[in-house]
Amino acid sequence: MAVPTPTRDDRFSFGLWTVGWRAADPFGDPTRPELDVVEAVHRLAERGAWGLTFHDDDLFGFRPDAGTRDKQIARLREACEATGMTVPMITTNLFSHPVFKDGGFTSNDRSVRRFALRKVLRNVELAAELGARTFVLWGGREGSEYDTAKDVRAALDRYREAMDLLCGFVRDRGYDLRFAIEPKPNEPRGDILLPTVGHALAFISRLADPELVGVNPEVGHEQMAGLNMVHGVAQALWAGKLFHIDLNGQRGIKFDQDLVFGHGDLLNAFALVDLLESAGYDGPRHFDYKPSRTEDVAGVWNTAEANMRTYLLLRERAAAFRADPDVVAAMDEAGVPALSEPTLSAGETTADLLADRASYEDFDPDAPGRRGYGFVRLHQLALEHLTGAR
Amino acid sequence: MAVPTPTRDDRFSFGLWTVGWRAADPFGDPTRPELDVVEAVHRLAERGAWGLTFHDDDLFGFRPDAGTRDKQIARLREACEATGMTVPMITTNLFSHPVFKDGGFTSNDRSVRRFALRKVLRNVELAAELGARTFVLWGGREGSEYDTAKDVRAALDRYREAMDLLCGFVRDRGYDLRFAIEPKPNEPRGDILLPTVGHALAFISRLADPELVGVNPEVGHEQMAGLNMVHGVAQALWAGKLFHIDLNGQRGIKFDQDLVFGHGDLLNAFALVDLLESAGYDGPRHFDYKPSRTEDVAGVWNTAEANMRTYLLLRERAAAFRADPDVVAAMDEAGVPALSEPTLSAGETTADLLADRASYEDFDPDAPGRRGYGFVRLHQLALEHLTGAR
Amino acid sequence: MAVPTPTRDDRFSFGLWTVGWRAADPFGDPTRPELDVVEAVHRLAERGAWGLTFHDDDLFGFRPDAGTRDKQIARLREACEATGMTVPMITTNLFSHPVFKDGGFTSNDRSVRRFALRKVLRNVELAAELGARTFVLWGGREGSEYDTAKDVRAALDRYREAMDLLCGFVRDRGYDLRFAIEPKPNEPRGDILLPTVGHALAFISRLADPELVGVNPEVGHEQMAGLNMVHGVAQALWAGKLFHIDLNGQRGIKFDQDLVFGHGDLLNAFALVDLLESAGYDGPRHFDYKPSRTEDVAGVWNTAEANMRTYLLLRERAAAFRADPDVVAAMDEAGVPALSEPTLSAGETTADLLADRASYEDFDPDAPGRRGYGFVRLHQLALEHLTGAR
Amino acid sequence: MAVPTPTRDDRFSFGLWTVGWRAADPFGDPTRPELDVVEAVHRLAERGAWGLTFHDDDLFGFRPDAGTRDKQIARLREACEATGMTVPMITTNLFSHPVFKDGGFTSNDRSVRRFALRKVLRNVELAAELGARTFVLWGGREGSEYDTAKDVRAALDRYREAMDLLCGFVRDRGYDLRFAIEPKPNEPRGDILLPTVGHALAFISRLADPELVGVNPEVGHEQMAGLNMVHGVAQALWAGKLFHIDLNGQRGIKFDQDLVFGHGDLLNAFALVDLLESAGYDGPRHFDYKPSRTEDVAGVWNTAEANMRTYLLLRERAAAFRADPDVVAAMDEAGVPALSEPTLSAGETTADLLADRASYEDFDPDAPGRRGYGFVRLHQLALEHLTGAR
Repeated sequence: MAVPTPTRDDRFSFGLWTVGWRAADPFGDPTRPELDVVEAVHRLAERGAWGLTFHDDDLFGFRPDAGTRDKQIARLREACEATGMTVPMITTNLFSHPVFKDGGFTSNDRSVRRFALRKVLRNVELAAELGARTFVLWGGREGSEYDTAKDVRAALDRYREAMDLLCGFVRDRGYDLRFAIEPKPNEPRGDILLPTVGHALAFISRLADPELVGVNPEVGHEQMAGLNMVHGVAQALWAGKLFHIDLNGQRGIKFDQDLVFGHGDLLNAFALVDLLESAGYDGPRHFDYKPSRTEDVAGVWNTAEANMRTYLLLRERAAAFRADPDVVAAMDEAGVPALSEPTLSAGETTADLLADRASYEDFDPDAPGRRGYGFVRLHQLALEHLTGAR
Repeated sequence: MAVPTPTRDDRFSFGLWTVGWRAADPFGDPTRPELDVVEAVHRLAERGAWGLTFHDDDLFGFRPDAGTRDKQIARLREACEATGMTVPMITTNLFSHPVFKDGGFTSNDRSVRRFALRKVLRNVELAAELGARTFVLWGGREGSEYDTAKDVRAALDRYREAMDLLCGFVRDRGYDLRFAIEPKPNEPRGDILLPTVGHALAFISRLADPELVGVNPEVGHEQMAGLNMVHGVAQALWAGKLFHIDLNGQRGIKFDQDLVFGHGDLLNAFALVDLLESAGYDGPRHFDYKPSRTEDVAGVWNTAEANMRTYLLLRERAAAFRADPDVVAAMDEAGVPALSEPTLSAGETTADLLADRASYEDFDPDAPGRRGYGFVRLHQLALEHLTGAR
Repeated sequence: MAVPTPTRDDRFSFGLWTVGWRAADPFGDPTRPELDVVEAVHRLAERGAWGLTFHDDDLFGFRPDAGTRDKQIARLREACEATGMTVPMITTNLFSHPVFKDGGFTSNDRSVRRFALRKVLRNVELAAELGARTFVLWGGREGSEYDTAKDVRAALDRYREAMDLLCGFVRDRGYDLRFAIEPKPNEPRGDILLPTVGHALAFISRLADPELVGVNPEVGHEQMAGLNMVHGVAQALWAGKLFHIDLNGQRGIKFDQDLVFGHGDLLNAFALVDLLESAGYDGPRHFDYKPSRTEDVAGVWNTAEANMRTYLLLRERAAAFRADPDVVAAMDEAGVPALSEPTLSAGETTADLLADRASYEDFDPDAPGRRGYGFVRLHQLALEHLTGAR
Repeated sequence: MAVPTPTRDDRFSFGLWTVGWRAADPFGDPTRPELDVVEAVHRLAERGAWGLTFHDDDLFGFRPDAGTRDKQIARLREACEATGMTVPMITTNLFSHPVFKDGGFTSNDRSVRRFALRKVLRNVELAAELGARTFVLWGGREGSEYDTAKDVRAALDRYREAMDLLCGFVRDRGYDLRFAIEPKPNEPRGDILLPTVGHALAFISRLADPELVGVNPEVGHEQMAGLNMVHGVAQALWAGKLFHIDLNGQRGIKFDQDLVFGHGDLLNAFALVDLLESAGYDGPRHFDYKPSRTEDVAGVWNTAEANMRTYLLLRERAAAFRADPDVVAAMDEAGVPALSEPTLSAGETTADLLADRASYEDFDPDAPGRRGYGFVRLHQLALEHLTGAR
């Protein structure tokens, strides 16, 4: 079976900081030269990608003069026009410069908080200008190493204050733009605020304007907490909050690896694609990964292709899995579709349930206790589809 | 310094299943005899505890005949009356019997879901009867091992259906009772639904009656996901949802250890007590731990005491820490209190912020970039207070 | 592509405790009936398995009377004769009974240590009698929860004393039997001695008779420490110590899941099969897994098949991967075979190296610093072979 | 109780790269200026430290001209003479420059391996010249991200080739110098070779000259694999291989935090100091930590002090713990000293053991099965000593 070729319709997007990563890490110097944004756009477009995303600092540096900023924006626009690429998402860097060493929106230093807000506001304007529909916020420096150094409740107050202000700004300006919070449990801070999809969703529910804010789950970030990415994304979908997604790979609980999508827990990646496709998620398939430090420039473009190839391959495998009558039968045996049936019948009240002797008094728990759900066989079917053996 | 003696005012409670744990584990048989509930109440009361909590099955077994159930409840009541002990919380076992092997509220088998609801409803009535104010729900079997075996969105629909029904029941009956969901990331299921405090809070926000439902964070459960218990509890407090708490110890990401409180990450335990006491949390200090399998009956009671001693010791240390002028000064230097100041001034609008050149155009980010927050020194002060060196 | 059918030549073996697991876990009661050993042998043989392994207690219980023991051994022998099944490995249960709650060979109680030795010696005799060639020792209770409760150096002395005694016994009796230590980092103890393949190999190197002792790595046990099973097995092979192997699945750092082989980290399972097959490992492919608690008796046998199917599937995929000219070329580009070339030339001395200006003085480190190893592309080739896309 | 003041006799040493860390991390730029080595020596000496350690690149950069190298070495010597500081250990940087991106001794590129050897040899000469007694080797780049990209057995061959060459060199030159391998499980590579103390000890046992090579365990590195640092150090001591130690702090399984010693798992740090002191370890107490990125230059020196203060505090607490008669009694009850008694009596043979009916036939396992070891109470005594409550 051939691996399908990516097209614009697949809505694959890449961060400029991904293919442009120079491969410095905590223990090593850069191994690759800088990548110009125009080249990035062209190279990605040639390979079938649809969108480029970026942090302000990626495109024009930290506090550029006006000329530099304008010129870089213009160059990006031209490259997009020439190639048909889009800018579906923009984000702001609130983590690289030393000023943000204790955070942006939740720094213990109020002047930093104000500066952070201004930096984001300026970038929100740019997002609207470029037609981006999603504005991602990764608060990688919002957090602490030491439990007494950060009043977490006050920090959440400040975080909410910032989000409420940003939502008000977008409303006032009439921008067609939504925010997506990207959770991460740790690194670079010892503990980051809103560490998982769950914490971010809970936070959003307490904002003044929750409709404008969703989440941007990243495969590796959830897996760094040992959590199941598929479960997290499903809860986000359930809450109507999957505004964006970061696809990559991670091999368990350790530092943030940002491998190519699928190059970590492959079975979970299969299930993730299956979920996204079957749930009708229609947002970008955004790759937030890092080409390994051992790769040269040619290798970088191979890694970009690998992300898209793997996604498409898993999409085909998942479709075949769902279409297989043996799978349908195994799903039925496992009771998977039966879970969509409400526990109470239509119109049934609690009083009715209490009066239903079949539900309790006459119920023999040993029978369902002996029932075989066949979950392992179903999973083996998934594995055999994934491996192309069926 | 002597360790203080526990009293009723400290509101220490214990699960009957904790001191009563017979010490069977996945690889070993029980090492201790059964513990009668009356003895449990007396022994705990003698040691200064205030409350006993239990699952239905702990007290009278799974599906007892009416006589057994009534007798056991009566014996518990008598013991409480004789000792002044209370029953502040009750919970239902939806995990031991094979019928629940794929969950209770979210089993793929609808008859199991109905049975689970009935079992909980029956126990809610008992909770109200015994004057418990909190009803904990730990959905340890709600989850999956295999990603295709559970439709997570459907499962969350069923979970919500169950919670909405329970809340309606409590409202209808006029019970003075609230629910507290206890998150756990995994074990016994490969992945458990609502794996962290964050996921549970997010779920609660989508219920019909969110005021009636909060969380019951457990130290070890958050730490099993590598998360900071203090951050999780702080977010729960921030959301007004800390309805109950399970104190114990865990040594990192591994199986659920249920050690004595403080016998895991001691610095985090210190910060947790500091948070609970300074936030004015007035609910039970509930120990949900297991006396190690190597201990005999006398050892069990030593472990019960150890939980309370450690809590009181940390409470004293935290109070001394907060009262130390060097700590107050270090907190100020670290900007900890400054985080409570809103980022915008009173009455300041976004337009005002945008017009404030000091916040951005004239702001020199290098100055706060060089600022020393002194977080390490503050943490060292905490360590020296914790170790009684100051 | 069809999945191949297992045969005796594949040397697949199963623990009696695997298919026989009754599915009790720390939070739940058994969901399946007991499995008789004769049925186990027949059912496994029918499915193409080659060997059955067991703990003493699995076959005839803890301290059986002589009649029971003999009868059970005879029944096993007969079943093996009837089916052609073998008993390639035996092991001793030093963990279930309360007597072993602080360990067997390293219990703080000397009488327990002596009893443990006797129990193992008795079982070594049985192993020899049944023609087993490997005797596995999993010291699951050798460890501690509390750092001051176990003198680890003394414990290692006692562990060595036990191993030296056992090796002497086997030598004296002239048995054709070797020992394989099975490492595990934790569970049921908080920390288990010899927690990884590395620690076990290091321990073995200090025994009186190191040739008689090797390791039995288990996929899930290494992965519970976040370690790479393939690296661990490779180091064991490098040391000539891969005497046996336990194949199963695990989804990251958490409790011991014992999933079907491949049902965890599939890419690592692929690489493991590739390593075993290419390294010429000719020992048993032993599955040490647990059929999930949700499965009934029919499901148990499906899970047994799933282990073997997955192994064979991965073996085919790995062979195709190795045979693909694109892979060979990518391996060359990545320098994989070049690592087998010694760093010094034949006959080259340190003095020669020091005199070789090309190695240092005239060496331009920037050139290899820019070299692309193409590791990501190679891994993508592996993924595409694994998924049957090439 | 006052915290004692460090003196030279405490043998505290610091890496130049620790206090000199400029606080760049994977997501952020440096927040502190460069630190000159002379200032480092003076500042550390003033605070009671005894030794300074360094990588070649720390002192004079990567491939310095001869003048720069000599000048920097001379400046270091003078500072040491002026202050009485020593250079107890030196190490080589085989990880920062891009040339090492696939490793040094085990790079897939042979020219890199040769260059790495030359770089280390040159630094070994310097170590001898400066009177260092230990040469640490941290092979942070020896490893892989992808299982097919590295032939681990070949890599171990090359690693051994390098170590054998280095040992031969030291022997030939007659240097009074030993090597210490520093294990780490991952970061910056996805999986690092010799990931734990155990793997390193096992590797050493297969070298040509094992007496010259030991280990340098680091607190955080073992804890990044979820392993117990105290157990690892104890096994190294047991093997006579604790040649050096890196003290720092880590909060569980995540990226390498390099916190101040004790600022992670405090109870384990207490037990580690207890072990080092009671085992008579007389090597350096070397701090390999990073002052948090939020600290300024003054804060850096506070963090240096915090390491030493915490060590001395724990040393006092451990001494008091050992001296407490209640602890001695609890240790006896727990059987801790009894584990040092051989399992067989003096002169007892296996045949004698087999003939001892008391050990098996007449042994009642239920009695020791009921025995209480009192481990929890012992741990609580440790906690109360650690917290200064006794």
